[in-house]
Amino acid sequence: MLVRLSMAASLLLLAFTTACTQAPPPDTHDADVQALKDTEAAWAKVMAAKDLEKDVSYYADDASLLMPNAPIVNGKDAIRAALKPLMDDPNFSLTFATTRADVAKSGDLGYTVGAYTMTMSDPKTKKSVTDKGKYVTAYKKQADGTWKAVADMDSSDLPLPVPGKK
Amino acid sequence: MLVRLSMAASLLLLAFTTACTQAPPPDTHDADVQALKDTEAAWAKVMAAKDLEKDVSYYADDASLLMPNAPIVNGKDAIRAALKPLMDDPNFSLTFATTRADVAKSGDLGYTVGAYTMTMSDPKTKKSVTDKGKYVTAYKKQADGTWKAVADMDSSDLPLPVPGKK
Repeated sequence: MLVRLSMAASLLLLAFTTACTQAPPPDTHDADVQALKDTEAAWAKVMAAKDLEKDVSYYADDASLLMPNAPIVNGKDAIRAALKPLMDDPNFSLTFATTRADVAKSGDLGYTVGAYTMTMSDPKTKKSVTDKGKYVTAYKKQADGTWKAVADMDSSDLPLPVPGKK
Repeated sequence: MLVRLSMAASLLLLAFTTACTQAPPPDTHDADVQALKDTEAAWAKVMAAKDLEKDVSYYADDASLLMPNAPIVNGKDAIRAALKPLMDDPNFSLTFATTRADVAKSGDLGYTVGAYTMTMSDPKTKKSVTDKGKYVTAYKKQADGTWKAVADMDSSDLPLPVPGKK
């Protein structure tokens, strides 16, 4: 009986010890980075389709949009208002792609760096002009598991004067 | 003897169970955010002192600097080369302050949003001109526990033409 109890206790201890050593969560870093890249690729498709509401859905409610030569824009409604004139432009088109991405070990915060090509109407001549530039976007994973942008910033690579912005 | 062994086993089990339930790391989020803000405040002091080497020391070796109307600059040496002409300008001064900061639960990745005021020489007139703008910086905690910028982007709030950039 004593031996059996000791064996039972030992097995229980082994079970608890195993449970303890298995406590650290699995390394999801590479999968998290890929999920973030996939999110940005899906966002790029939405932009190519010029869908304002779907575009804005990639921002968190309290997101900040930081565009060149304009004050910071805070909150989803203000971001929608800032992007509408751009997307209403018949010459507008935007493509972008991630060049760098990282996600925290905890999988809840990440950022991307990328490059864009944007076509729009020159405010004066109304002719189509093309800009090339870069961006940094910080993302936070939401309660539903989706990635949303919390800070999104872009600027042109082209020397001043920027086409279409003079 | 049997009772003693059972008690000993129970105490051991209790110890392991307690150890298991204590496994999740403590919540360091607020302290991590404060540490990141403190890092950025220290960086701002270095910039105020116009110390190029100390300024560059706040970038990770593989950091990216994204300045307006210029291609992305990758790596600490290229960042140093890009910043030197600015800091050699006798009229140059830069102040900046964090307006928003967040850090992942795991404490290894974070970002800031902030505002800057920069004075520099107008390339044509050589007179001192002042620019106001904003920035987004992504940070990664290094092996030694310090925060280093991995992506750093800024742009002017002022409508084009930007003073000093025409």
